[in-house]
Amino acid sequence: MIDFTYYNPAKILFGRDSEQKLVQELAAYGNRVLLIYGGGSILQNGVYDKVTGLLQQSGIEFTELGGVKPNPRLSLVREGIRLCREKDIQAVLAVGGGSVIDTAKAVAAGVPYDGDVWDFFAKKAAPSSALPIAAVLTIAAAGSESSDSMVITNEELGLKRSFHSDWIIPKASALNPENTFSLSGYQTACGASDILAHLMERFFTQVRHTDLTDRLIEADFRTILNNAPWAIANGDDYNARAEVMWAGCIAHNNLLNTGRVGDWASHAMEHELSAETDLAHGAGLSIVFPAWMKYVYPENKDRFIQFAVRMFDVSVSAAEDIDGVILEGVSRLERFYQSIGLPTRLSEVGIGEDKIAALAKRCASDKPDKTVGHFKKLGEEDVYNIYRLAL
Amino acid sequence: MIDFTYYNPAKILFGRDSEQKLVQELAAYGNRVLLIYGGGSILQNGVYDKVTGLLQQSGIEFTELGGVKPNPRLSLVREGIRLCREKDIQAVLAVGGGSVIDTAKAVAAGVPYDGDVWDFFAKKAAPSSALPIAAVLTIAAAGSESSDSMVITNEELGLKRSFHSDWIIPKASALNPENTFSLSGYQTACGASDILAHLMERFFTQVRHTDLTDRLIEADFRTILNNAPWAIANGDDYNARAEVMWAGCIAHNNLLNTGRVGDWASHAMEHELSAETDLAHGAGLSIVFPAWMKYVYPENKDRFIQFAVRMFDVSVSAAEDIDGVILEGVSRLERFYQSIGLPTRLSEVGIGEDKIAALAKRCASDKPDKTVGHFKKLGEEDVYNIYRLAL
Repeated sequence: MIDFTYYNPAKILFGRDSEQKLVQELAAYGNRVLLIYGGGSILQNGVYDKVTGLLQQSGIEFTELGGVKPNPRLSLVREGIRLCREKDIQAVLAVGGGSVIDTAKAVAAGVPYDGDVWDFFAKKAAPSSALPIAAVLTIAAAGSESSDSMVITNEELGLKRSFHSDWIIPKASALNPENTFSLSGYQTACGASDILAHLMERFFTQVRHTDLTDRLIEADFRTILNNAPWAIANGDDYNARAEVMWAGCIAHNNLLNTGRVGDWASHAMEHELSAETDLAHGAGLSIVFPAWMKYVYPENKDRFIQFAVRMFDVSVSAAEDIDGVILEGVSRLERFYQSIGLPTRLSEVGIGEDKIAALAKRCASDKPDKTVGHFKKLGEEDVYNIYRLAL
Repeated sequence: MIDFTYYNPAKILFGRDSEQKLVQELAAYGNRVLLIYGGGSILQNGVYDKVTGLLQQSGIEFTELGGVKPNPRLSLVREGIRLCREKDIQAVLAVGGGSVIDTAKAVAAGVPYDGDVWDFFAKKAAPSSALPIAAVLTIAAAGSESSDSMVITNEELGLKRSFHSDWIIPKASALNPENTFSLSGYQTACGASDILAHLMERFFTQVRHTDLTDRLIEADFRTILNNAPWAIANGDDYNARAEVMWAGCIAHNNLLNTGRVGDWASHAMEHELSAETDLAHGAGLSIVFPAWMKYVYPENKDRFIQFAVRMFDVSVSAAEDIDGVILEGVSRLERFYQSIGLPTRLSEVGIGEDKIAALAKRCASDKPDKTVGHFKKLGEEDVYNIYRLAL
């Protein structure tokens, strides 16, 4: 186990009336709020009306910034910062999923900063304050509701970047499973895949003696394996939605990477896929992860045996071939993805052999030391080989 | 799953140099500190010298309050409050285990309060502020290093009482596994038993649909089963100490009871034992818990089957007798306690049949509705029967 600091002061308000509690929390930070949301879904499923009604009842004035899209953009962040300064906004309220909350975080950090908010992403500066952030979560996936990070795309530079700061951990987030009932099966599956990926990025470490966090990751992983299919089959199964929602939050709040170093190569490789096509992040991850596993497992077979046995109950006996045990684990992961309607091959999403060299080049060349990942450091050729395995 | 609020802003500084980071955190709260500790152990194992050296280097003035004993007392809390007011203390630093940190919490809440600090324990008032609290943990057991509660004994009234408040969650705690190397095998075993009890009090719930938190509890429980024997066999096994220390913190920081209602009858029954004798809390729990299980399991056999199967790998087949599966789980728990040198019978600690009626009367009569526990509400006769099973 390696040394660590764990700090997560986000207040999680979980359950059917959590939006009401959230608005009470928000009122403590001020009565002029920027309300950030995405496209039409919250207008259709009643969440917009519920939240704005609660704001009005509490005498909180709100300025709206709608239209956040997946892979949220810097231009909208800048617009939010401008609005906050113009209206003397005191807190930011995000109503949506990861893209909306990520946008809110960047706005909140940018408002009190004299320079350009991109400086934080370019690592030229670090936030020393931020507006308080609150969130009403509408999809279990990204974990942004209690994480200390976000991802924003700079359209002008063609760069997707993130930064970490305790300042951008939301003060409070409302997790009401009912707010996810209207998600489609495919959206729910993509969210589940994102959560599994957050868990696997943490699980695959070369750090030894990580018994507790291994087991906690396994607990969260198996909760998703158990509950996501029920949530997909029956969108308004409250308990299945609740398990997935709470598991998704814990998967990414930093508890599960205490004392260990995660990998994160698969996230980097997926970012190139969703930049190239309109692929959902979760659907890109279900393609990349099995291929990554097949390529890197010789680096630490023990860890992959543990994955196969503990996540998927693959049986190990002295007579069996170890590589067979490992590959059966990978195969069961692929079959799980397929069972919830996700792709596991690039060919399923229209990416052929002709494109992967350019994707691999972009993925690796962009990084400081031209590699991605920690479990095994992957250069451009490795990334190319992994994409090839995923064809 | 039931609705919940989860909030735990304690900053956990984990590892070999965590005391140094803690003193840096502490300096942000002021330079006049009350240093609270217990008996001689921190003077002997170098922790006192290390911490006071760091305080001096940082220019932090400290006033000392030593002599905290197990089952910490209100009189010492009042002495601490008096000292803080006299010296205009800005923060409280606890160096020790649960009793020391509990004392620090009560002092911190009492200082800014105009009335008597016992009002909080008597539920006549609730804290609306507290001095900042920091802790250097020296035993993995009580979980006070990040919990929102404490237990204090009022010697005058002969009452042991607690209260919960977000104000008394430590701002930061240093968890350095090396600070637990000098604990004896028996102390380590008692700590492990306390942690297992915190997990079982949460595990045994009548709330349905608690898949994630069940699994997280099981993860923490099995981490203790795995690592406590190593820490006991070899006191300076850093990794075993580290696993037990982090597991003990998470066991009691409220994460593992989100969405469920815990039981807590065994803690109430144990409190009578350690009030009657000098028994360590963990050694009382290893006596009470198996007896409680044997008495209450018919209330929800499914949950006890899950306990037997998931915690102790008892095999279930259609041919087997369900009660046999359950009792094998209880038996494996007893054998685990015995394997780490803990008692599982009242007769081992000098409590005979002649005493249990009085203990049962005190345990139940003391409570608002004359019962203890939530899994099954236990009146005086039930408690008597459980003590009988433990003879």
